Amino acid sequence: MLYAVIPAGGSGTRLWPLSRAGHPKFLHPLTGSSASLLQETVRRLAPLSTPERTLVVTGVAHATAVARQLTQLPEENILVEPSPRDSCAAIALAAAVIATRDPEAVMGSFAADHVIGDPQRWAQTVREAVHGAEQGLLMTVGITPTRPETGYGYLQTGDPVGDGPLRPVAEFKEKPAVEVAEAYLRSGHHLWNASMFVWRVDVFLAELARQQPDLYAGVTAIAAAWGTPAQDEELGRVWPTLPKISVDYAVMEGAAAAGRVATVPGDFGWNDVGDFHTLGDVLPTDPAGNVVLGTDAKADVLLRDSSGLVVVSQSGRLVSVLGMRDTIVVDTADAVLVCARERAQDVKALVDELKQRGEEALI
Amino acid sequence: MLYAVIPAGGSGTRLWPLSRAGHPKFLHPLTGSSASLLQETVRRLAPLSTPERTLVVTGVAHATAVARQLTQLPEENILVEPSPRDSCAAIALAAAVIATRDPEAVMGSFAADHVIGDPQRWAQTVREAVHGAEQGLLMTVGITPTRPETGYGYLQTGDPVGDGPLRPVAEFKEKPAVEVAEAYLRSGHHLWNASMFVWRVDVFLAELARQQPDLYAGVTAIAAAWGTPAQDEELGRVWPTLPKISVDYAVMEGAAAAGRVATVPGDFGWNDVGDFHTLGDVLPTDPAGNVVLGTDAKADVLLRDSSGLVVVSQSGRLVSVLGMRDTIVVDTADAVLVCARERAQDVKALVDELKQRGEEALI
Repeated sequence: MLYAVIPAGGSGTRLWPLSRAGHPKFLHPLTGSSASLLQETVRRLAPLSTPERTLVVTGVAHATAVARQLTQLPEENILVEPSPRDSCAAIALAAAVIATRDPEAVMGSFAADHVIGDPQRWAQTVREAVHGAEQGLLMTVGITPTRPETGYGYLQTGDPVGDGPLRPVAEFKEKPAVEVAEAYLRSGHHLWNASMFVWRVDVFLAELARQQPDLYAGVTAIAAAWGTPAQDEELGRVWPTLPKISVDYAVMEGAAAAGRVATVPGDFGWNDVGDFHTLGDVLPTDPAGNVVLGTDAKADVLLRDSSGLVVVSQSGRLVSVLGMRDTIVVDTADAVLVCARERAQDVKALVDELKQRGEEALI
Repeated sequence: MLYAVIPAGGSGTRLWPLSRAGHPKFLHPLTGSSASLLQETVRRLAPLSTPERTLVVTGVAHATAVARQLTQLPEENILVEPSPRDSCAAIALAAAVIATRDPEAVMGSFAADHVIGDPQRWAQTVREAVHGAEQGLLMTVGITPTRPETGYGYLQTGDPVGDGPLRPVAEFKEKPAVEVAEAYLRSGHHLWNASMFVWRVDVFLAELARQQPDLYAGVTAIAAAWGTPAQDEELGRVWPTLPKISVDYAVMEGAAAAGRVATVPGDFGWNDVGDFHTLGDVLPTDPAGNVVLGTDAKADVLLRDSSGLVVVSQSGRLVSVLGMRDTIVVDTADAVLVCARERAQDVKALVDELKQRGEEALI
């Protein structure tokens, strides 16, 4: 069985006004079920892991909400970061804590706020990655690109190794310009980097020690105190000193250059739910092509002569839409958003404007 | 000084969810000021009439709201209809009550829920109508049409009489088909019927007696009891027996055929605020071409890269709109509407659907 690590951070600004600083997107049910993205992530892990082997790394602000949503997880499996230090510190702390329990454990890291269309196929792909990890590789699950997306990073892969699906990762690529993204799509050698990692904790920690010795020393010290009376003091002393850096940049790029990273291409309907437009693309529509999310959507939403809508009804008020196309309507207790789907990315700018206005209660 | 009669009825279904059965459009501030359409109507009458000579005819459901909005009106000037009997009974009752106070009074009837762009010019036009009324004509104020509107009735006029602006009205025309409306527009002899009437009460009541003897007898009986202890009993006895008929159909058409109706063309920015699209056309826009109405619109509305909007913010929640064109957004405490401006007329269909669903609380 795999150890699963779920970094649960990020505010999901482009999903405002649903997603708020105090209640970010991973805590919301955004897939048509009553389960939050975080709960769906844990549910999806059932064939691969157990609650005892599932760890969530989250911020102080969300620790209680995470604890209440994931009652099946042991308390000590919810790692609370005293402050945000980016993904490397979060994942490395989880790896170090797991290593104290099982030094040769294989762990996978999976974001708390992604949607997977075909969970069974996803689990099969992760199993293939586990095989690579057992051989000592730092594995990623890359997503077969379906469009020249400029909002994601890419993995540049070599030719398949042997008969299996494994491919070496030659390089991690930043978010590309559109022409570059188009070339990637044509190349057949580029996958989306979905920040899904699978590795043996000893292999990862050795690579961390090589490339980021301070980070390695810090998380090892914290992990040694984990579950002891000294835990919080050690965390409070060491954590603020850790460098703020992503795991891609801190470890994976260097490891790829050293030939230690491989990937298995995934083709299971992955989506990072970056904005309401994307959300609409990944969820099932009604016969008119509208996606409706809400606790009691049948009673609360009245659509007429409308298509291509993404409607989120969260306040219990009636949301009525007439004669609209390709529009996002989000209704919450204190704010309503009406937005063209093609402008979904720019919801972030609205939140920035509210910040400037000092409307902290709304963001 | 003129006696002014303001029939205040009609629910304004196409202005849902702002306008409700219990709080129809004439009670709402819809012109950017804090005054309701009803209050604006009374305010506009200041150069022509006095509160003592201003009468409102309204339904049981709205009597208290009217009384509270128009505190300057004497109590006995608010005539409460026990049940809706269409415009002839309402206007005839007012005429009969006025006749008991001043048998040769000139009265004007003006809807409670219209917007007038240029009130001074409007008052001047009404004064011209008063001159016609003093000569014993049933006067209307017709609106010079600016488009081939199919939603209004028309007045077919003859050539001007003498030097003044008066023209005889040959016929009242129903809402026309679009080709007919285009012909009316070209003819130069057709005006919109805005249901603005000016006449001597004795002339009107004589015409009522000739064409609608039952209605005449009924309202005369009620008016005789008005202000006496028998008022409510007489009203309760007679009112339900009165025919439900519009004043146009009951009196004006027949009077026109008899050569007793004339009109003065009006050109003062008239609008009947039939729906949110129309409302948007008549109110001042911000630099981006958006009309925003609300108690605290500056704080409650955040528009970005949007134009041609009509936004009504009534709940105190933040209404944010991004990248939208020609859209209506109405936010109330229990319902939100998002509607293409070109579909504004069809808001009525949404209300019908809510009725069918039994959602009485929302309509």
